[in-house]
Amino acid sequence: MKLTFSPGSPFARKVRIAAIELGLIDKIEFVPTTVVPAQPNDEYSKITPLKKLPVLILDNGDVVLDSYVIVEYLDELAGGGKLIPTSGPDKWRVKSDHSMLQGMLDAMLLCRYERMVRPAELKWQGWADDHWNRAWSGMARFNGKSEVLSRPLDIVQISLACVLGYADYRYAACGWRKAYPNLDAFNERMLSRPSIRISVPPPA
Amino acid sequence: MKLTFSPGSPFARKVRIAAIELGLIDKIEFVPTTVVPAQPNDEYSKITPLKKLPVLILDNGDVVLDSYVIVEYLDELAGGGKLIPTSGPDKWRVKSDHSMLQGMLDAMLLCRYERMVRPAELKWQGWADDHWNRAWSGMARFNGKSEVLSRPLDIVQISLACVLGYADYRYAACGWRKAYPNLDAFNERMLSRPSIRISVPPPA
Repeated sequence: MKLTFSPGSPFARKVRIAAIELGLIDKIEFVPTTVVPAQPNDEYSKITPLKKLPVLILDNGDVVLDSYVIVEYLDELAGGGKLIPTSGPDKWRVKSDHSMLQGMLDAMLLCRYERMVRPAELKWQGWADDHWNRAWSGMARFNGKSEVLSRPLDIVQISLACVLGYADYRYAACGWRKAYPNLDAFNERMLSRPSIRISVPPPA
Repeated sequence: MKLTFSPGSPFARKVRIAAIELGLIDKIEFVPTTVVPAQPNDEYSKITPLKKLPVLILDNGDVVLDSYVIVEYLDELAGGGKLIPTSGPDKWRVKSDHSMLQGMLDAMLLCRYERMVRPAELKWQGWADDHWNRAWSGMARFNGKSEVLSRPLDIVQISLACVLGYADYRYAACGWRKAYPNLDAFNERMLSRPSIRISVPPPA
């Protein structure tokens, strides 16, 4: 299998961590890929018209997306129910919490594009603030979910670590550790895992 | 159950169609909800910090998101495997195709926000074009998937109908019917279903 990858993508990081934790990392070839909004990338558009990272390209040529479906796929390949519960009320809580974290990452990327990629004279402060607030208030919510922060590893914890890692990577001065001490403690525990530590984004 | 809803949201429409097709529509109370980027909505932020439509609020208070997970939830409630295959290679093809359509809708909404919601002096043509192209080239891809267009109803077909309905709603002059005749024929067939017809967005 091949995974389109960039070390700065929190979505690609999520899949990388999951693959390590599921024991599948050696079966995946990483294909370095760069995507920038408002810049064409005709070659990658042929793989996915969304031009988003990551996608998993199976040996038969099938393309699996998005990052959540890739983790589901890998989880099933590893036997099932390892990172995503396969039944019961927990299944829907985990899926919904993951959707929230996915939306927080989307919002953080949109905020970054607004502040740092868009031409300076075209920035809309209200848009940037709104999207940052979605991520920030989402962090507040997870800071209060002690059960989520302390249970065995799952896709929610992996995604939350990716949110916090992305905050460090692109919003280093935002102060999440001080505002959300439970997330700080959670993140320190997560960093004791090799999969989390090895995948921290490079210095911005 | 309660569903936050707006008749113009293609994501809410997808859930509505799925609920009708699964025979669950009478169990869902629709809660009219308005969200506008860069405008606060403190009440809705308490339900979801992402401020996105739709979410499903269960009778026990649990909140299920996003639209895909809601359809998965309803599908399981209806017995399972009705709109999303539960096993085999088709499962991953359906999930991946759905992710692509979901990304196309995201891109269409971002393009609309850029062109029609953002203050006029702050518009970035390159961003709008890039996101429109993601949706447009995604349509080209589905126009060539004759098997997807002709098989029994599933979440991919429902989502594709929502993409095309949203194109009519917000990009009435884009010319998708002429460019993609297979999608045109597919859309006409889909409109023979009451669930699709009743949920067409109101005139913009």
